[in-house]
Amino acid sequence: MKDFELYVPTKVIFGKKALKQIPCELPKLGKKVLWVYGKSSIKKTGLYERLKAILSQAKIEFIELGGVKSNPPLLKVLEGIELARKHEVDFILAVGGGSVIDTAKAIACGYYYKGNIWDFFEKKAYPEKALPIAVVLTISGTGSELNEVSVIVHDTKKIKRSLRSPLLFPKVSFLDPTLTFTVSPEYTAYGAVDAFSHVFEFFVNRKYKKDNLVEDLMVSIMKNIMKWSKIAVKEPTNYEARANLMWASSLALCGILKAGIGAYRFPIHAIEHTLSGGYDIPHGLGLAILMQAWIKRYKNDNIIRKFFAKVFDLSIKKDISDKGVELFENWLKELKVPMSLKEIGVPEEDIDVLVDKAFEIFELYGVEKEYPKERIREILETAYF
Amino acid sequence: MKDFELYVPTKVIFGKKALKQIPCELPKLGKKVLWVYGKSSIKKTGLYERLKAILSQAKIEFIELGGVKSNPPLLKVLEGIELARKHEVDFILAVGGGSVIDTAKAIACGYYYKGNIWDFFEKKAYPEKALPIAVVLTISGTGSELNEVSVIVHDTKKIKRSLRSPLLFPKVSFLDPTLTFTVSPEYTAYGAVDAFSHVFEFFVNRKYKKDNLVEDLMVSIMKNIMKWSKIAVKEPTNYEARANLMWASSLALCGILKAGIGAYRFPIHAIEHTLSGGYDIPHGLGLAILMQAWIKRYKNDNIIRKFFAKVFDLSIKKDISDKGVELFENWLKELKVPMSLKEIGVPEEDIDVLVDKAFEIFELYGVEKEYPKERIREILETAYF
Repeated sequence: MKDFELYVPTKVIFGKKALKQIPCELPKLGKKVLWVYGKSSIKKTGLYERLKAILSQAKIEFIELGGVKSNPPLLKVLEGIELARKHEVDFILAVGGGSVIDTAKAIACGYYYKGNIWDFFEKKAYPEKALPIAVVLTISGTGSELNEVSVIVHDTKKIKRSLRSPLLFPKVSFLDPTLTFTVSPEYTAYGAVDAFSHVFEFFVNRKYKKDNLVEDLMVSIMKNIMKWSKIAVKEPTNYEARANLMWASSLALCGILKAGIGAYRFPIHAIEHTLSGGYDIPHGLGLAILMQAWIKRYKNDNIIRKFFAKVFDLSIKKDISDKGVELFENWLKELKVPMSLKEIGVPEEDIDVLVDKAFEIFELYGVEKEYPKERIREILETAYF
Repeated sequence: MKDFELYVPTKVIFGKKALKQIPCELPKLGKKVLWVYGKSSIKKTGLYERLKAILSQAKIEFIELGGVKSNPPLLKVLEGIELARKHEVDFILAVGGGSVIDTAKAIACGYYYKGNIWDFFEKKAYPEKALPIAVVLTISGTGSELNEVSVIVHDTKKIKRSLRSPLLFPKVSFLDPTLTFTVSPEYTAYGAVDAFSHVFEFFVNRKYKKDNLVEDLMVSIMKNIMKWSKIAVKEPTNYEARANLMWASSLALCGILKAGIGAYRFPIHAIEHTLSGGYDIPHGLGLAILMQAWIKRYKNDNIIRKFFAKVFDLSIKKDISDKGVELFENWLKELKVPMSLKEIGVPEEDIDVLVDKAFEIFELYGVEKEYPKERIREILETAYF
């Protein structure tokens, strides 16, 4: 077990009655809020009106920033910072999924920063102060509701970058699984794949690969994501499925599953960011395609065989590589997720550019030697057909 | 999955180099500290001198309160409160195991309370303010380093009571598994049993017993405690065993394993508190005897069969009750833990008094109807031989 630090100061309020705690919790953060949300869905489902009533009951004045899209653009963050400054808000309320939360986080620390907020994403500067953030989660997957990470897309550069700071942990996250009843089977699947991929990357791409407690926790979470996602895409209002999926997704990236694993990498995410950043496809879809390619390509590696053995309860002593690939693909098929870059219309000739873009990300993190261009190409080519 | 709230704001610094972070972390809490520790062990191991040097390096003035014993007495808490007030300390540093940490927690909230601190333990009053607490853990088991609970023994009443308040979460806990290398096999076993019993009680004594993610996490933790404790009692300096045991114990009672399980009870702990409170035996020893009695007595209950099936990988479809009891007892035998009240010298005629004392605790929590005296007697009598 490797040395680690763990700090997750977010208060989680989980369940069917979670929103009832808003009038008790939010006034602790201030009287005036910038309310960030996405496209039209919260208006369609009635959540918008419901929250409006709750905020007024809690005597919280709100300024709205709607229209945040997936693969959240920097321009929206800048708009939010301006709005937050103009109205001198006390805190930010994110109502949505990962994109909305990540936008809220970037606004929260951008509020106090005099330079260009993109500096944070290019590691040229670090946040020193941030507004408090509260979250009402409406889609499971990214885990942003319980961590300190924000991922934003630069509008003109078409690149996706992440920022990590302990200032960005939400103060409080309201997780009501019934709010995800209206998420389409497609996006339910993408969210589940996203959450799964976080654990998969920890499991596969860590230096310290011995059997231990943390590994078993990872396996429990991966098994549960597989199990409950299959139910949730078929029965959208199955509370158990939605609740287990939501909680598994939050736990997946909150830090507990990397506690003790030592150095780790997120290469599948790095490569994926070139896809969702470049073609505006859902992050979870890009991850599904790349994860499946990774598994196929490295199916005989010890760590992938250990993954097959533990997640699918197979005997590591047998030749389980092909069986493992099949079982993993069966899961994606059941979720009805496309499984190749070709299928989603990425032109084959783009692979060269994608390799270069992904390599740039590895360079940014100083791990380009571990992931030379040939290795990136290998994965993208396996992912193509 | 039932509604829940989860809030664990303690910063964990884990590993061989954990203590190196002290000069960076403690000055955030203040300049003057009440340093609480136990009997002579930290002086024998050299930890006392080491910490003295670290505190002086961090320019922190300290006042000492040594000599805290297991089943920590109220009188020591009162002594600590007086000392802390006299020297106007900024925070408390607990260096030890559960008893030391629980004493530190009681002092921390007693510092600001004008009445009798025992009021908190009798639910006659609730803490409104507490000094910050830091922890250096030297024995795994209670999980007090990562939760908001304090358990104290009333010196004259000879009763053990617990207090729970979010104010009592340590601000920072330094968990260095090498500090437990010197813990005797006996106390290593008691600690492991204590940690295991927390998860066992959640698993067995919850209202909501469906298969779900949280149940799987419990199983992972229980399996790991069993596995690594067997190694740690034989190889005291096995880092992997000590590290996994330490982290599993911390996770066991931090709140994650009760997230979603609904209402739960801790009846084995309630009954045990009459043993360790009354005879000053180690808490983990009392728990081992009672847990084993509980398992024997209820071996055919569905939830105990589910416990056997999941923790020992047995098929629930078969008759596994006796096999399960045997496997559980094998674990305790391997840890060399006594397995009956008779064996540890409790007089048989005391059972009547123990039943009454335990019943009082159930009354205090308002659950006396679920645990009538006959039921308590049943367990104590099974535990006797």
